Amino acid sequence: MADFTFFTNPMSRGQIVRWALHEAGADYATKLVDWANKPQSLLDANPLGKVPTLVHHHSGHDHVVTEAAAICHYLAEMHPDAGLLPGEHEKADYFRRLFFAAGPIEQAILCKAMEWDVAPDKAMTTGFGNYDMAIDAFETLMSGRDFVCGDRFTMADVYVGSQIDWGLQFGSIPERDAFSAYAQRLRDRPNYKEAKAIDMALIAEAEAAKN
Amino acid sequence: MADFTFFTNPMSRGQIVRWALHEAGADYATKLVDWANKPQSLLDANPLGKVPTLVHHHSGHDHVVTEAAAICHYLAEMHPDAGLLPGEHEKADYFRRLFFAAGPIEQAILCKAMEWDVAPDKAMTTGFGNYDMAIDAFETLMSGRDFVCGDRFTMADVYVGSQIDWGLQFGSIPERDAFSAYAQRLRDRPNYKEAKAIDMALIAEAEAAKN
Repeated sequence: MADFTFFTNPMSRGQIVRWALHEAGADYATKLVDWANKPQSLLDANPLGKVPTLVHHHSGHDHVVTEAAAICHYLAEMHPDAGLLPGEHEKADYFRRLFFAAGPIEQAILCKAMEWDVAPDKAMTTGFGNYDMAIDAFETLMSGRDFVCGDRFTMADVYVGSQIDWGLQFGSIPERDAFSAYAQRLRDRPNYKEAKAIDMALIAEAEAAKN
Repeated sequence: MADFTFFTNPMSRGQIVRWALHEAGADYATKLVDWANKPQSLLDANPLGKVPTLVHHHSGHDHVVTEAAAICHYLAEMHPDAGLLPGEHEKADYFRRLFFAAGPIEQAILCKAMEWDVAPDKAMTTGFGNYDMAIDAFETLMSGRDFVCGDRFTMADVYVGSQIDWGLQFGSIPERDAFSAYAQRLRDRPNYKEAKAIDMALIAEAEAAKN
């Protein structure tokens, strides 16, 4: 049995987690989830039936992890030899940006997609300000460095970078140098290419089956 | 010089971080921030001028951490002897719930406050579903356990618990057994009481100065 059971659908944030699994070098088995017909094994692990959901079969325990950012960091913790965890002086940058991308940026992108406007006098009361403020802050946080922790790739880049990579592709994050050059550095990684190729093939298969 | 400079306003999520500082036993100096007149030292550390902001004066480096959940976890990392980090078999619960509270729950509470409705057919496309789905899921995640990691208090409880504690006080989270009993366990902690007493005194002082 593989160490990890990975419930996913190729058309989901499961793409982020698959990349994380490949960066960590994790031993995993994929369970594809059809939205309309969720397998009982997923509902047993996670009553919400959300993907991605990861189950870690760990020394006789089955540990369930959800939330893409949490799964990424968990995989780094479980594979310390992969060198994806932050060092002592990288931890502030790592956790600050990981939570900034999972909180304020996720909110800002959702508000834009749903056409929810934050009036200027309300921006003080939300955690992210408004869309423009959050994106400008994100740009500041990602400027003057190649990766989240400076010049070295860590697991935080899988999640933070995916927010930017997807955002640029779907137009929810604007083209700016700090975003575009960073996304290109990530797309050049062998583990990114390997993981994406698997999901792209699964999407093509599903499309072909429909026709 | 104290190890940590803590920029806060007592009427903010700085309350969460002060509690975390006390649980960690951190050596910190408070810099009170007046919304209308932010000190240059805060703007130097964090161009966004957001509070809470923590600066860690660490072996000749100044590391800046923002985002309340990130600061909580960072403080646990920097004070391993305080026993607030998750053990090997607690990490899945710890990171899953920490990110669930910082992501989906934060979004759900904001949507309720802003009166942004997610139509049922759109709930698949948001990370949190809608308010009711997110709260029900949170209840499931916090049921059958005394703390985030089971029977032991960890730093995740400071952040996750604060979302619930505040939510119950402000009506953004409904009264349910899994929430109310948990919040009471947290309010009974000496470090919670000590930290809150400081912020309540600061709020009272500010009110008195206005009159």
